[in-house]
Order: sequence, then structure tokens, then C-alpha cells
Amino acid sequence: MGKNAIVGQSGGPTSVINSSLAGVYESCKSRGAEIVYGMRHGVAGLMEKNVVDMSALLKDDLDIELLKRTPSSFLGSCRYKLPDWQKDPATYEKLFGILEELDIGWFFYIGGNDSMDTIGKLADYGAHVGRDIRFMGVPKTIDNDLMVTDHTPGYGSAAKYIGVVMKEVIRDATVYGTKYVTIVEIMGRNAGWLTAAAALAKGPDCEGVDMICLPEVPFNVDRFVEKVAAMQEKKASIVIAVSEGVKLEDGRYVCELADDVHAVDAFGHKALTGTARYLANTIARRLNTKTRCIELSTLQRCAGHMTSRTDITEAYQVGGAAAKAAFEGHTGEMVAIKRISNSPYQSTTELHPISEVANLEKKVPLSWLNENHTQMTQEFIDYAKPLIQAELSPLYIAGLPHHIYVED
Amino acid sequence: MGKNAIVGQSGGPTSVINSSLAGVYESCKSRGAEIVYGMRHGVAGLMEKNVVDMSALLKDDLDIELLKRTPSSFLGSCRYKLPDWQKDPATYEKLFGILEELDIGWFFYIGGNDSMDTIGKLADYGAHVGRDIRFMGVPKTIDNDLMVTDHTPGYGSAAKYIGVVMKEVIRDATVYGTKYVTIVEIMGRNAGWLTAAAALAKGPDCEGVDMICLPEVPFNVDRFVEKVAAMQEKKASIVIAVSEGVKLEDGRYVCELADDVHAVDAFGHKALTGTARYLANTIARRLNTKTRCIELSTLQRCAGHMTSRTDITEAYQVGGAAAKAAFEGHTGEMVAIKRISNSPYQSTTELHPISEVANLEKKVPLSWLNENHTQMTQEFIDYAKPLIQAELSPLYIAGLPHHIYVED
Repeated sequence: MGKNAIVGQSGGPTSVINSSLAGVYESCKSRGAEIVYGMRHGVAGLMEKNVVDMSALLKDDLDIELLKRTPSSFLGSCRYKLPDWQKDPATYEKLFGILEELDIGWFFYIGGNDSMDTIGKLADYGAHVGRDIRFMGVPKTIDNDLMVTDHTPGYGSAAKYIGVVMKEVIRDATVYGTKYVTIVEIMGRNAGWLTAAAALAKGPDCEGVDMICLPEVPFNVDRFVEKVAAMQEKKASIVIAVSEGVKLEDGRYVCELADDVHAVDAFGHKALTGTARYLANTIARRLNTKTRCIELSTLQRCAGHMTSRTDITEAYQVGGAAAKAAFEGHTGEMVAIKRISNSPYQSTTELHPISEVANLEKKVPLSWLNENHTQMTQEFIDYAKPLIQAELSPLYIAGLPHHIYVED
Repeated sequence: MGKNAIVGQSGGPTSVINSSLAGVYESCKSRGAEIVYGMRHGVAGLMEKNVVDMSALLKDDLDIELLKRTPSSFLGSCRYKLPDWQKDPATYEKLFGILEELDIGWFFYIGGNDSMDTIGKLADYGAHVGRDIRFMGVPKTIDNDLMVTDHTPGYGSAAKYIGVVMKEVIRDATVYGTKYVTIVEIMGRNAGWLTAAAALAKGPDCEGVDMICLPEVPFNVDRFVEKVAAMQEKKASIVIAVSEGVKLEDGRYVCELADDVHAVDAFGHKALTGTARYLANTIARRLNTKTRCIELSTLQRCAGHMTSRTDITEAYQVGGAAAKAAFEGHTGEMVAIKRISNSPYQSTTELHPISEVANLEKKVPLSWLNENHTQMTQEFIDYAKPLIQAELSPLYIAGLPHHIYVED
């Protein structure tokens, strides 16, 4: 009898993370895994042996197809940070005990850089105790901030959503022909990839956003107000895309200037929110002009109704490539996407040691911004445009996209 | 030589108001209007003779098709309130002078109850001075708060968007399996039709929202917190849809309890925002639980990428029916949608005197809420469900919906 595989999802949901899950599942099955287990709520759930036989959840090809088109993490997620195994071996003994009990040969974790940290630690510990389980990381994050991979699955769909929404917001903002400043807050703590995607709105049928503020560029509130005032001289409706993570020169987040409470999560990350609201209120007060703030919030990461077919396809591919690599004996690695060419767009997958990815962040290169750091260059557009190409419509039933989900 | 027609759009944009514009335009053309003028920025623009020959903007059938699929107000909008003609005849003399200069025989205004007030006043004045211009109102508002019409064009698409987004938010909110309260703020100043649409999310593949708070029901903050606490005993993730316009028993808006500045528009309406944020902060503080607020804001009214085909089709029909009525001699009336049957859904149009519509608001009947006033009944679902049926995909070019627009 063959061994079993296990797969988990971790970190913030995306609209294509389930496509990667489908890729892992189908590839493991076709390669002869006896059972493919799913961790409920990632490694945190696994610690409590909260696992399911995925074939019980996915009964036929329609279920697989629905899975690919269902946003958010089908198996549930967690933000659990594994301790160092040198400091807390008991946690690892418990986890590996559970994996042994389940007769696991292949272990997959779909997530961002925190999740790759988990894969790295498990592979290290496994090698240390001489266990023959293969640990593979499958990249996922709308933030696009993972090293070594050209881009991350999840980014293309979020970028497409942002491009679409910015076009609609720009159309909406111009109707009155009166002075109006709209500030749209976009996710991205330290890397501005998502905010940069607002640049995609520009085209023959859209005047585009008037300013883009990335967290890579130190933010100065006075200069920001001056720039808006200057733009208002020429144009009634100003639409600005601002990252939730823009920081002052002294390192404080702009949103900390507002007076809301800011919680901290398990990884010590401050909750960032209120940047656009703070800036809209500041502009309204100082320039005596009508303003509005829009937070794309959760909507930008769970918009299963607006995915990029390129993204969904690649998400499926990286899942399959991870299974292939694990079955061929690889461990402690992450599948990356390698861009072969831009026109026509072609990509393939490759493997990288997890140490090149875990806990690192890839920022937007400043050379992809114009001199004033207010707009993206053509180089960025050439990079991002292929990732938002083509659509994959949800399966609509009675007017709404149909999803597949596991009851808790 | 025949006379000319003129059409304007007024009030907040929707994602199907341009489909009504296409209906008016094509129907006027086919009925023999020499020129169909478009008012730039509604009556406010007309006062400055800011009009365009629409055939110069719509060159072929593809343009008309794009117009139907482009959100926001193609011609621009305004929030201009006409004075009473008895008090300010000069304004009317000027306006009618411009209409005479343009040789207008038929006048159409697409908008909500404020816009119908405009149609009513113009028709009254026209009758008073014995001018033979036909004034017809074409209903439009995502708020669905117009009298006499079964529903308003624009509502079905916004309701569909809200149903889709709530399903996605619910999927996203459950992934961690931890206690989490999500509060989604939905438009609707005095009428809760849009917030009620959150009830559409519930189905075999979705657990639905846990509570719905309409502005028709007086809001009590303490009782709200108690209800949330009780729900949390049974379920980790709670998702609540709340109208921006919920009011305390003393008549103050809940959002006024927060400390933001609140502007007032030309019609004396207070800007409502911050309701969900205030409630999320209150819940977090009092129940010591993780919360999140999501404002659907402008996104819910300009989501051209997520329209109801039923809605787009009816929007076109009411435009055409208005032209037909005007050419047959009607004036001072609004086209309404009359529901013929629910299963199968069938509708037609009928005419109503503008006095039955202008400045009035249709609320959600309290009998369509459950006893606790926290959920919608099946009666509401039966009413709303047909309005969100079927899709009309945008024309995608290079990954983004293509729009048609007029440069200022």
C-alpha cells in the first residue's frame, strides 16, 4: 500500500488559492497517493489532528471545477507561527507523530512567506530526525511579495480586480464635473504591487489614476497635499491609489496619524486601516474640497467573480508542479513561476530552496516608478498586463456564483 | 423638419443608467426625432447650454452596445435642485429659452425622486406658459425607493453585486475558524432595499448573513451588542449587513456617534459614512473580539462588471417606453415597471403622474422582516430574486471591461 499526502492552506485567502489546492490534489491522486488529506485551518488544525480525506469533499469533476472557481481557503486557514525546533522540540515531535499516524509521505503548504517559513522548519526538522517526508511549498499571496518567483498566484486576479474597480471608480468620480478628490486604499503592508496595479486602469477608454502612492516611497503629508492642490488646478476629479502601508519618513504608518485603535496579529503585524480616510479628511480640511475615501479591503482578495484566467491556470500549475517535485524526491523547496517571454506571454515553473523565500519580501523596484514616484512606468505595465489576461466566469446559479465549501 | 429631443441624467450613477439612455436615444431616433441632444451634467449643464448631439458620440451599433455596458452616467450628472417656478420664474424663462433655441419637442430626465421633482416642475411651468414640450421621467436609482414602480432600474444590479460580495465576504470571514465579527456597510439613506439584498447570499452553498439592520427599524446600540454576543455563543464568524442610514430612536444617525466631520449636499442630505466602523469599534471594545468593517461605498453603484441582465434589459425598456409615451403626447409622467408575475418573472411598463413619485420615498415594508427585525422573510426573497437573474458580461479588451466615455 502506498503512502498518503497532506495539504494545507495558510495566511490570507485569495481568489485562486483553491485552484492550487485542486492542482495538488489531482496531481497527488494521479501519482498514486493513497489518501490525500486536507488540514482544516492549516498547521494549527493539524496540531489537533483536524484533517479530512479530500476525496470525501470532492466527489466528482464538477466539484473540482467548482473548487477552482471558489474564492477563499476551502480547507480553512491559520496564522500559526511554528516555534524554532531547537527551542521547542515537543511541538515538532507531536506534529511528526500525527504525520506518522496518518502515514504521510508528501506534505504541501500553500501560502506566503510566513507559510514558507513553516515548510522550511518542518523540512529541517525532518532531515534532522531522519524522516522521509517530502515538504513542498506552493506560493500564494495577492501581495506578490515573494522572492525568486516572477509573480505569485493570486496577484494576477487581485491586480485585475483593482484595475477593473479603478476604471469604474474613475467613471463614477467624473460625473458631476465638480472638484472632487477620491482616495482609494489598497492592500500591501510593505510592498506596493497591488497599489501599482491601479496603473492598469489607464487606456484609450480611461484617463487612469492621477497619483499612485506605494509603501516603498517615504510619504510626506504636506507634499501630498501640495501635489493634490496642483493637480486640481488642471482637472476637476482627482483619483488617487494609496497603499494601506504608506509610511512617513520617521517610519510611522500614515494610518497611525488617525486616532483609531490598532490591533496586532500573531506575527506582530499591526492592523493597517484608515490611511485613505485620514488623507481624505486632511485634504478636505486643508484644500476645502469635496473628498471621498474607498477602502478595497477584503473585497480585493476574495473577488472570485473577477479572476484572471491566466492566474487561475498558473495557480493550478504550481500546485501540480509541487506534487510532481515531491513525488520525485524534492523537499524543503518552493515552486516558483519563471517568465519565459512577455510577448507572447509564456511561463513555466522551477524549484528554489525555501531559504531563498521564507521571511523575505520582494518590493517594487523604484526604477518602475516615474521620477516623482507618482506613476508606474511602462516597464511595470509590461510586467503586470499579461497576468490579468482573460476571464474565468464563475458558475452562476440563479443569478449568483456557486461555491463549494466545507461546513465547520 | 421635425423637432428635436433632449435627454439628461441626474443624481448618483448606477451601472445601468446608460442602458436607459440607450433606450431613450434609439427610441427617439426611430420615432423621427431630428437630433437627440444630451445634456452634459443634467439640468445644471443645460442652464449653461452644455449639450451635445448624441449621434456624434454614438457612431455605430458597437457604441450603443458599449453604452449599455458602461457604468456611471455617460452624459455626466448633477445634483441641481430647480427652484419653484412661482418664486423664480427667471430660471425657467432661461431654461425654456434654451429649449426653444434647440427646437426641443421631447424632454427626458433619467433619475430618482429628486429628478422627478425636476420633471414635475418643468411640466407644470410648460403647461402654465402653454408650451408644447413633452416632459417624461425615466426612473433610476440603486436605492429602489421610488413610489408606484415595482422596482427601479439600477436596483437589480446593485442587489446582485451585494449578494455576490456578501457570499465572498462570508467565505473569507470563516477561514480562520476563530471569533470574528464582520460588519458590512451598505448604501440606503432612509430605505433599506440595498441592505436587504444581503439576504440573497443565503443558499445551499452559503450560510448567509447573520443579521440585517435596515434604516426602517430604530437602532439600539446596546441591544445590537447583546445580539452579537448571543450569536457568538453559537458561531465563530458573524457577518452583519448594516445600512449606512440606521438611526437611533431619537432620530440621530448611528454614524453621528462617531467623531468624523459630516458634510451636507445641495439637497441638504448629510453625508453618511462610518456606521460600520463605529459599530465594529464598539463591538471590539465591549466584547473584546476581533472585528472588521467593510464599506461597499461607491463600488456597489458603479460595478459595471457585475450587472443583472434582467435589470439592464428593463433599464433599456423604460427608456424606450418613455420615448414612446412622449411621442404619443404624454407629459409630466414617469414610466414605472409593473410586475405581472413572479414565476415565471414577467414585467411590463406603465405611466404614472409625476406627483405620485416626486420627493416621496418607498420604504421596505416591516412585514418583510422577521419578528426580531434581523432577517428578511421569504416574501422579500421572492420579490428580489427575479431582479438579479442572468448576467451581461462586459466587453473585455486586454483583461479589462471596455467602456465608452465623453471627454470633458
